[in-house]
Amino acid sequence: MGSSTPASTRERLLDAAATLFYRDGVGIGVEALCKAAGVSKRSMYQLFDSKDALVAASLEYRAPVYAALTLPGPDDTQPPRERIMHVFERLEAVSGTPEYRGCPFVATAVELKDPEHPASVVARHAKDGLTAFFRAEAERGGAGDPETLARELTVVFDGASARAVVQGGSLDGLAVKMAATLLDAAGLCGRGNDEGARSPGEENRAP
Amino acid sequence: MGSSTPASTRERLLDAAATLFYRDGVGIGVEALCKAAGVSKRSMYQLFDSKDALVAASLEYRAPVYAALTLPGPDDTQPPRERIMHVFERLEAVSGTPEYRGCPFVATAVELKDPEHPASVVARHAKDGLTAFFRAEAERGGAGDPETLARELTVVFDGASARAVVQGGSLDGLAVKMAATLLDAAGLCGRGNDEGARSPGEENRAP
Repeated sequence: MGSSTPASTRERLLDAAATLFYRDGVGIGVEALCKAAGVSKRSMYQLFDSKDALVAASLEYRAPVYAALTLPGPDDTQPPRERIMHVFERLEAVSGTPEYRGCPFVATAVELKDPEHPASVVARHAKDGLTAFFRAEAERGGAGDPETLARELTVVFDGASARAVVQGGSLDGLAVKMAATLLDAAGLCGRGNDEGARSPGEENRAP
Repeated sequence: MGSSTPASTRERLLDAAATLFYRDGVGIGVEALCKAAGVSKRSMYQLFDSKDALVAASLEYRAPVYAALTLPGPDDTQPPRERIMHVFERLEAVSGTPEYRGCPFVATAVELKDPEHPASVVARHAKDGLTAFFRAEAERGGAGDPETLARELTVVFDGASARAVVQGGSLDGLAVKMAATLLDAAGLCGRGNDEGARSPGEENRAP
């Protein structure tokens, strides 16, 4: 990884790569990428073995930023249902912006079409991280089958992201409504019971 | 469109393009494409104004084939719930095959990253067609809000497709279970009531 190279070159390249791969797709050429980052191709290949390695490294480098866009912050103290709903409320907001191109992890995997590509592995780990967040909250909230609920919520997240891309517009509350329906069906009620009116037995599970 | 050109050349090109764009992505070069189709670049540009036009035309050409993979056939006489569930059962089967690369319409839109691209417009129309199918069945089945239910089912379809790509494997019944949960919540019961046990009032809506 060229420990003698200043960290700033590596970070500048990772930043530019993450931005361009997301905006234009992973098919963008190394030439254009290095130009945008202000880094020579020689420097790039000193830092990364291949473009594939750069795609993977840039996605991993940017992953915490992407996660912070939708996950509750470290100081959040809300109950499980609210913490899960936070993700979908943030998704509705983020997916309505003009620069939105879908979930970056799903987009990368869909574009690469190879589950063994190092960047597809990064994408899979990131999505597994989101599912793990949902599962932990579902467990804490007393859901009957936290693992299945977590997978279902991830499917809603990715399906709603895809819808925002295909329709080129706002989700109009669809993701929030679907998440609430799944949480209701799983018996995961909220602090205020304001979204769980259809779920029988939710009173028994109020935190 | 060159009416003097034999239809077979156009169809051979559309077939090869649809197959290669789905398998390798829309970034594949015109050179490789024409070679695979056994068509000269000159012939290609006589038939299509641009590669963008070919991407759109090939997706539209293949759309009925893709639709037939998951929709019930023209002779199907099952009740609405069963017809909707058929789509998700088929999705589970199709997405578990090694050549699966996700929903072709979502994949194209995600790769192009431009809702105004002619192929993104084709993709949007195709997804709207799936939503229209769900809505018609939801209406026929007496769902309270057929439009919302139809959109939700489309989100599950696309989210499950994305999951199959990201995880590189089988959905293990997740799409079928989620569709059933949404149909239950919307009061759309089936012939046998075998999947709708959790839905209050479903007895009143049996077809």
